[in-house]
Amino acid sequence: LIDLPFELTILGSSSAIPAYGRHHSTQHLRVGNKNYLIDCGEAAQNQLQRFKLKPQRIDAIFISHLHGDHYLGLVGLLSSMHLLGRKRKLDLFGPLGLGNVITLHLKYSDTVLRYPLDFHPLDVETQVQIYEDKYVTVKTIPLKHRVPCTGFLFREKQIEPRLRKQRLPANLSIEQIRKLKKGEDLVNPQGDILYKNRELTMPPRKSRSYAYCSDTVYLPENARLLKSVDILYHEATFMTEKELRASHTLHATAGQAAELAKKAKVNKLLLGHFSARYKDLSPLLREASGIFKNVYLAEEGQVFMPDE
Amino acid sequence: LIDLPFELTILGSSSAIPAYGRHHSTQHLRVGNKNYLIDCGEAAQNQLQRFKLKPQRIDAIFISHLHGDHYLGLVGLLSSMHLLGRKRKLDLFGPLGLGNVITLHLKYSDTVLRYPLDFHPLDVETQVQIYEDKYVTVKTIPLKHRVPCTGFLFREKQIEPRLRKQRLPANLSIEQIRKLKKGEDLVNPQGDILYKNRELTMPPRKSRSYAYCSDTVYLPENARLLKSVDILYHEATFMTEKELRASHTLHATAGQAAELAKKAKVNKLLLGHFSARYKDLSPLLREASGIFKNVYLAEEGQVFMPDE
Repeated sequence: LIDLPFELTILGSSSAIPAYGRHHSTQHLRVGNKNYLIDCGEAAQNQLQRFKLKPQRIDAIFISHLHGDHYLGLVGLLSSMHLLGRKRKLDLFGPLGLGNVITLHLKYSDTVLRYPLDFHPLDVETQVQIYEDKYVTVKTIPLKHRVPCTGFLFREKQIEPRLRKQRLPANLSIEQIRKLKKGEDLVNPQGDILYKNRELTMPPRKSRSYAYCSDTVYLPENARLLKSVDILYHEATFMTEKELRASHTLHATAGQAAELAKKAKVNKLLLGHFSARYKDLSPLLREASGIFKNVYLAEEGQVFMPDE
Repeated sequence: LIDLPFELTILGSSSAIPAYGRHHSTQHLRVGNKNYLIDCGEAAQNQLQRFKLKPQRIDAIFISHLHGDHYLGLVGLLSSMHLLGRKRKLDLFGPLGLGNVITLHLKYSDTVLRYPLDFHPLDVETQVQIYEDKYVTVKTIPLKHRVPCTGFLFREKQIEPRLRKQRLPANLSIEQIRKLKKGEDLVNPQGDILYKNRELTMPPRKSRSYAYCSDTVYLPENARLLKSVDILYHEATFMTEKELRASHTLHATAGQAAELAKKAKVNKLLLGHFSARYKDLSPLLREASGIFKNVYLAEEGQVFMPDE
């Protein structure tokens, strides 16, 4: 009867040049007992170890684009899964070329993976649903960067009514609890209603959602797709004073990330993909919080959950 | 008049699966003002930063073979050199396929390196000299592993006589000191000998040398090529109790590394490429030191120099 976990762990949020001990973009998302990796920067496998997250439990990996700081940890991670004896299928989503990169590495290292790696090349022009399991659906978010790039929107599905623990009769069977969670009334063998569903349950909590947008220039038109998400991670490579440089390199500023969060009325904003020029990140946080209140720095090791 | 540095810094010595915070094989060797990288495992660029070694000062990189734990940090490092504005040539030595891996990464990330990357594909069948600069020559060491693999032997060249500081006249010109270092006598304009070279100099110190052997099965026949090197780094993936597994996977044991060091009469032995099965590495050190006394664990962050 415990609520399902929905936990985002930041494993790295440095932009192209790692600096001050910060690592490249990698995130781990757990929903229920499913585990997803979002981007896979260099040393992702070391960072997973460091923060006690098990590579073998990862069900699917989502790669936004083929700049090295977002995927150069992938081949090492796939190899370690192989060496650790993985047999279970792994789903991998990313740009078409990613398949060629992996194939070349496996060829030169004379390796045949012992587990099925299901590679799903991404078409990133429009928003499409690319993944679905028991807990979530994942849709792409069109982004604009120097190479084809896509964001990812994770949304919980199949939210069950919550049981009113105080009112539950003591001797309900597991079968009866299942019926309640499906929204059904409890009836006796003759079909008479024993308890109406709404007597014993509360409406389901809101479906939780997480959106990952990196790397991209500021795209205010994405506010519609990001409408009311619980957590938005948005790249904030620069401060506003470097806005020209941001648009020139197809990156965004902390201020722009906050503008988008405000426009989309998201609940919580995480800033990341920090330029190596910023040792102290608090000015980026200050800049964004002037525009949008509920904002955090996505620093590695931190765990974020949707607010209750 | 200071002696030239000859410093080996270990940046990683974990075998295939990184464990206990240990990183993949990467080493930094400084001789004089030249800097070399030997293998380039994942997170090599992070490790360089961590141990305050500057990527832009690296002159040449030597890759032993195309197993991921020995080269998956290379593309990230090359990219960072590019982003940091490198213009200076970089020499890269490694198996032929390495060129294709780099080309593919650069293509997908839409990157044209701003500096000349001179790739020298290696033929690994016999010992050949592959590199030479002001300070060292580098020769290959034939190794035997699951994929083509080569070791590297760095040897100092052009060792100058050492000046006897106590006996030097006070007013020697830079030109005169140069002559002494070239082994010449000092003469006056008329050609008369002022000082004989051997009055003011001592014989040059011994040319220092470093041999890197990873990954490989035990090859006692390499003792000849490794004869009397100052420092031998040899892979010691397993303990002797796993000798069968070592030979099956074409790796070596700590005991075998020590046998080779003894046979080759090297001065100092470094053990590395530790299996993830060993959390505590002291048993490997104990095993080797029963056979060869001057032996050390090559743990990351440690700096080794030839004994005086």
